[in-house]
Order: sequence, then structure tokens, then C-alpha cells
Amino acid sequence: MTQRNTVDTDVSATTKTLKVALLGAGNVGSQVARILLHDADALAARTGARLELVGIAVRNIDSPREVEIPKELFTTDASALVRGADIVIELMGGLEPARTLILEAIDHGATVVTGNKALLAVDGPTLYEKADAAGVQLSYEAAVAGAIPILRPITDSLAGDKITRVMGIVNGTTNFILDAMDTTGAQFADALAEAKRLGYAEADPTADIEGHDAAAKGAIIASLAFHTRFALADVHCQGITSVTATDIAAAKEAGYVIKLLAIAEKIESTDDAGAPTSGVSVRVHPTLLPREHPLGAVRGAFNAVFVEAENAGELMFYGRGAGGAPTASAVMGDVVSAARRLVLGGPGRTDSTIEVLPVLPIQAVSTRYYIGLDAADQPGVLSKIAALFAENGVSIETMRQTVHRDGNVKGGPGSAELRIVTHLAGEAALSATVEAINGLDVINSVTSVLRVEGV
Amino acid sequence: MTQRNTVDTDVSATTKTLKVALLGAGNVGSQVARILLHDADALAARTGARLELVGIAVRNIDSPREVEIPKELFTTDASALVRGADIVIELMGGLEPARTLILEAIDHGATVVTGNKALLAVDGPTLYEKADAAGVQLSYEAAVAGAIPILRPITDSLAGDKITRVMGIVNGTTNFILDAMDTTGAQFADALAEAKRLGYAEADPTADIEGHDAAAKGAIIASLAFHTRFALADVHCQGITSVTATDIAAAKEAGYVIKLLAIAEKIESTDDAGAPTSGVSVRVHPTLLPREHPLGAVRGAFNAVFVEAENAGELMFYGRGAGGAPTASAVMGDVVSAARRLVLGGPGRTDSTIEVLPVLPIQAVSTRYYIGLDAADQPGVLSKIAALFAENGVSIETMRQTVHRDGNVKGGPGSAELRIVTHLAGEAALSATVEAINGLDVINSVTSVLRVEGV
Repeated sequence: MTQRNTVDTDVSATTKTLKVALLGAGNVGSQVARILLHDADALAARTGARLELVGIAVRNIDSPREVEIPKELFTTDASALVRGADIVIELMGGLEPARTLILEAIDHGATVVTGNKALLAVDGPTLYEKADAAGVQLSYEAAVAGAIPILRPITDSLAGDKITRVMGIVNGTTNFILDAMDTTGAQFADALAEAKRLGYAEADPTADIEGHDAAAKGAIIASLAFHTRFALADVHCQGITSVTATDIAAAKEAGYVIKLLAIAEKIESTDDAGAPTSGVSVRVHPTLLPREHPLGAVRGAFNAVFVEAENAGELMFYGRGAGGAPTASAVMGDVVSAARRLVLGGPGRTDSTIEVLPVLPIQAVSTRYYIGLDAADQPGVLSKIAALFAENGVSIETMRQTVHRDGNVKGGPGSAELRIVTHLAGEAALSATVEAINGLDVINSVTSVLRVEGV
Repeated sequence: MTQRNTVDTDVSATTKTLKVALLGAGNVGSQVARILLHDADALAARTGARLELVGIAVRNIDSPREVEIPKELFTTDASALVRGADIVIELMGGLEPARTLILEAIDHGATVVTGNKALLAVDGPTLYEKADAAGVQLSYEAAVAGAIPILRPITDSLAGDKITRVMGIVNGTTNFILDAMDTTGAQFADALAEAKRLGYAEADPTADIEGHDAAAKGAIIASLAFHTRFALADVHCQGITSVTATDIAAAKEAGYVIKLLAIAEKIESTDDAGAPTSGVSVRVHPTLLPREHPLGAVRGAFNAVFVEAENAGELMFYGRGAGGAPTASAVMGDVVSAARRLVLGGPGRTDSTIEVLPVLPIQAVSTRYYIGLDAADQPGVLSKIAALFAENGVSIETMRQTVHRDGNVKGGPGSAELRIVTHLAGEAALSATVEAINGLDVINSVTSVLRVEGV
């Protein structure tokens, strides 16, 4: 056995102490408290300072907690706690009082670490500017994709490259539901019920299944990847509630898997005068991906962010997107960085604003589309449909017809199921095409219109 | 269309200039030169300094290059170039003169960025110590897994967590070969020939296929993940040359895929006196992984590093592990970080040495094993084999027998193919078992012995 000397850093010799205030002791907050209390020596060795948890602000001191925490640490006076801290960790969630407390912390020159994606998506630009102006560090790795280190790779590791596109599975609830539908053939409602039963969906799952949570994370990722500040309102957002078992089955048969993606991409176009211009679009919608795409292998409640950069090519970052301990890991990464900086000096990470690009609406985006149609099984139907695509300038890549002659299918006997994948098409042209197809008397219904990526 | 103001940072107002010396203009070096020359304005905006490429040291000024570079930048006097630089980028590869030039750069107080994994694996500890002593930054993100940002996430993002295990596909050549064998059923030699034809394997592929390259990267990753300095000699290393099409087919049938993994893990054991102790082991060998494991989906020449941490759980980082532009992206990430630090001040990243653990040999590692046997189809064979496992204290998880009664298989008529997967077993016990089985007269041959991970 090769034996080497074990070097024990003499922690007791560390004189500096940093006062840490924790706001919130929920799922993530209680795990952060546990790490601060139990791993104090290791953290001191890593940072060169004792991280002293001076208090935990909660609404109700007597609420049951997942982790045993000494009672005397709890306080309901968050404001007093913030004023006495070197590092403030905000894990209360929601807009208020989180916003006011973060602003108080910035005013007092405290370093702030937050995992509050809702607040950052709504008010991020204001908070970043206040922090910059005060020369205070505001870190938020935990706000996007839980444990996955994604913000630091984007801002630091890829700082010498140019990101062209980011596609993320950033909501575990919807990925769990879509994965369950894909694996078991379940309908959306049944998969959602299962997700609730297993604790992957909240009692009110609206923010997840309507895509709002993914949109908030998409706005944060896009802001960093494209040095342009996005607000939630800039994100085109469509959830997964209308995705059916039939959509999933048809996608599967064609070699695709349906994922809810947050996509931020740089789009080159021309302005009104015909000059070349570029902008950034951020969108969240159910997307068909080839099953062999790296994002296609992201199962259950896991998250992953797929980045395309000019030089690096394709990168992917995968891990747990939620949960107390995983998210606490991301929070503590920020806390250790902040503490090292407070001990050793130095400017820390700053938001780069070298290239503020116009924010483009969904109409500026071209994608491939998958369209499912329930049509009459009559001669000439295909040519009528193909003609409408041509009239609207949308090019068809593949068109597949399955005729049902028995009564066991949705369209009934004599109906045909059509599945069309287009080449790149703009939203306006595609909408016009779908509207025109809907008006054909040989069409029973347009069963699905989904975007296709990753091919 | 939402229009926002475009802010152009006034680059001309940036007064500071940093002199950058590039050593080597091969595949990666020429791409780094391209980025420094073509993206100078963007880099200035990101760092706050002009990055002036003052020269490129090469052996032969007239060699053909992949990128057009002004001739006057080339020099054969690397030493003079190093002495006049703020940032030295070493991309020559090999031990000398790279080592001497890096030491010269450190002596002159220049920040060093290198992608030289061979040098770091052999001499890393010396270089890190010299750099630390001189207060100089030595960065090497490009040395491991090409474009994939892995060192920064390990050292910074996971700084508040405890890594327990890292498993990496860190050699693109061997992953391409194994993936081709898995996909097409090809034999090793044919897959290697195809890899050479496509430029994924070098004319002399020894360093790749024997696992030496993966071992060097494993040593670097392990050093950072476990705050313990490993040299190449500490890594148990087995390549893929003995992996057969039969192994791959049998693995596939059982739901596994064979990957060459570099595995670094913390092992808890007891010392001679019975006290609990922990150490780290680093090993490289062909490994059976469940096909649904995230690393199982890493195809072709891509790389990925799978990290397990106490709080974060499972994380994976995926991307291109080689190639000029992808590796140049990683180099430039380090250069931009170094430049920001030189402009803004601050200590930069430092290696943490909070916990120097003993380096354990492969004998300290327990894994599951897959064993393939070609045996006589006689009554009592299974019980003889099972008895030998029991005698050596190796527990069998599954045992599967396929009897071949025709003459079209290796063992010939009357032979039986046995596939055994064990529970966790130590190397010594497993070796003794295999030796004993080999001595049985009913055994034609032991066709494979492979470790199983990820279950």
C-alpha cells in the first residue's frame, strides 16, 4: 500500500470568522444549515475562515424541520439578522420579503447567495445592478438546474468562446411526467397523478406543467449565455398539458422523444433596412428530439443543459435539478467561493455585458415542425394538404400516412392518420399553413403541432 | 419585436495590454492563435485588456498550419518569447522542452495555461508547487476532457460538497472503437483500423488503446477531486486491446455496454490496527456499465465525466474530448480567467490541500465482476464452479449457461458458455477464483474477466 503523509490543516489557527445568515429553513435551507453546522471544519480548511451560522430567519420557529438544528439559531427578525452578516443566504423563495431582504443585504455590503429563480426572473436586472453598484457579489448557481454547475461553466469556462444556443431540461416535474408517459404509455393526467403521489409534483403543479418555472430558468441562463438581460416576459412559454399519449406514441414510433425544453439561441437576421443583425430568442415548449440526442437520455426528474458554442461544439451538463441536498450543494459552492474571496480579496465573478443583443419574439424563430392530422381516407387528400404547405412556403421533409379501416381508432373507419415533419419554417408561415389545413373539409382534426430540435 | 439598445463597450479605451506567448502551433495551438487574432475585440471586452499575441514558438517556421497566421509571429526561440510574456500558453505537448519552458515562465512571474496532460501526469506535483511558491497561476482545463469544463466545476462549484467518486470516459479514440464494436459487432482490430482511417486514432495508437492517456487524465482529475496529488504511477491501468467482439455481444445481450473508464474513488477501510481509515484509488480499465447509465449514452469520440458527491448526488459533464477548436475553447477559458485576474487583481483559483489521502492500490478496490467461461457441457460443471467461488469468498449474483450443441461456436459441440456476474469482490479473491477455475479440467477457457460499475 502506498502510504503518504496525511496533512491536517490546522483549522484552529484560522483567525478570520465570517458571519453567515440563512433566510429560510425549508427543504434546501435546512440542508444548507446541516452542511454549515456539520462540515464546519472542512469548510474552514477550504475557505481559510470559520463560517459561523449566526442565525436562521423563519416565519415560524416551531415548524417541524427535516434536519435537527439548535433552536437558539432561529429568529423571526430577518432584517436584524441580515444587518449583522458577512454572507446572506436567501432560500425563502417568493418575491417578498426576499427582495427587500436581499436589497438590505446589498446596502449593508454583505455578499448574497440566493436560489430564488422566481425573484431573479422577475427582478434580476434590478438586483444585479444594485449589487454591481454597491460592489457586492450576488451569486445564484442554485437558482438554475439545482445541483448542476451550469452558471460557472457558462460565465467562466466558456468565457473565451461564443455560445450560439442553449437547450435545457430544467424542470424535473415535467421531465418525470413526460418520461413516464414515454415509458408506460400513460395519459398526461395519470402521469401527473403519479408524479404527485411520488412527491415530484406539488399539489398545485401549475408553475411546472405550464412551463413558468422552466421559463424563469431559461431567462437566467439566457442572460448569462448571451450577456443580455432577459425578463420572464421575454420568454415565449408553452407547457405540457396538451401533450397526449398519442403524441408521445407517434413521436416514439418515428424515433423521437418529447421533452419540455427551455431554448435560448442567437438568431442572425436582417433589419428593416436589410442590414445583418442578430438577436436572442428564449422559448419554452414541448419539443421532439431524436431519441439518440444526449438530452433524450435524460430520464425521470433529472435535469440537463445542452450548450452549443462556436469552438467547444456540443457540451452537456447533467444532474439533479431539485431536492434539498443537491440544491444545497450548489448553494454551498457559491458560499465557499464567496468566502474565499472575502478572505483572499479579489473581485469575484462579474456579469459580462460586452454584447447586449435585442430580445427577439417567437416570430423570429425558425424550427422544424411535427404536425399530426386526422384526415378522411379519400383520394386526393395528400395532394390538397401538400399544396397548402407549398402555398405557405413551408417545405415538407417527410409525410407519412396510416390508414385505419377498422373502428378502433380515433378517426373511425375510413380515416387516415397523417404525420408530417417540415424543414425549417417560421412561426407565421406554419400557423397560416395549419389554419388553412384546418379549413379543409377532408380534415377531421389537427391532432398535434410540435417543434422538432436536435436533428 | 422588442428592441433594446445595443451597448458597445469602447474597446479602444482599454489601456492595459497583456502580452501572450504561445508555445506550439499544432492542432490546438493554431486554433488558439486564430481565436486570439480574430476575436481580439470580444476578448478585450470580456477581460478589460488587449490580449496581444506577441509570438508563437515552433520547431519549424515553415511547417504547414491549419490556420493562416502572419509569418512574423513565428519564432524558434521559445525561451526569449517566454521571458517577455504576461501569459504563456503551452501547447507543445511532450515532456521537454515543455517542462523547462513552463518553469522559466513561472520564474518570470508569467501566468501559465497548459493543455499538456502527459507532463502534468508525470510532473504535475512539482509544477503546482513551483507555481504556488512563486504566487503564479497555472491552469490546465484543456488537459482533461478537451472542451468539457470539468476542472472548474470540481474545484469551485463542488467546493462546498464532498466528491466520493468520479468515473470518466476521457479518451475519445477508445470510446470511438468500443462504440463501433458495440454498434457494428466489429472485432477490435477492424474498429481500430476504421478509427485510424477517420482520424480518430493516431498511426501509433498505443497511448490511447493501452489506457495511458486515460490514466494521465484520471490522475489529474483525482488530484483535484480528492485534494491529493496523484502521479501516473499511482494509476492501475488496463487498456482495451483484449476486449473482443464476443465480450461486447455478451455484454449487450445482458443489458450492458463496455466503456473504458478512468475511475477515481474514495475507499473507506480499516488500517492494520483496525482503525477506520480512508484512501483514494485511481484505475483505468474496460468496464461493463448498464446501457441506461448516463455514461452508456456517450457515443463516438465524445467524452463525459460522471461525478458522485455527497450532497449533489450524480452529475455528468459531456462534450468533445479532443479536436483543435474544442480544446482551444478550454484553453481560452483559462486565458480569459487569467487575464481578468491580471486586470482586476485577486488570488485566482488555488489547489485545495485540506485532505491529503493515502493513495490505495488496485488491491484495495472491490467491484462487481463479469466472468465469461467456455466450459464442457457435462453434468456437475456448474456446481464445481460455484464451489470455487464459495471457497474464495466471492458471492455470485447471476449465473447464466448457454449450451451449444452445433459446431458453429467457439467451444465446439458439447460446450457450454457460462456468464457470471458477482457481487462486490476484492481483486485478490477474484484472481484466486479465476485461477482455480482455470485449473478445472471441465473448463476450456476463461474468455473474459471484466469489472462492472454503475449498478
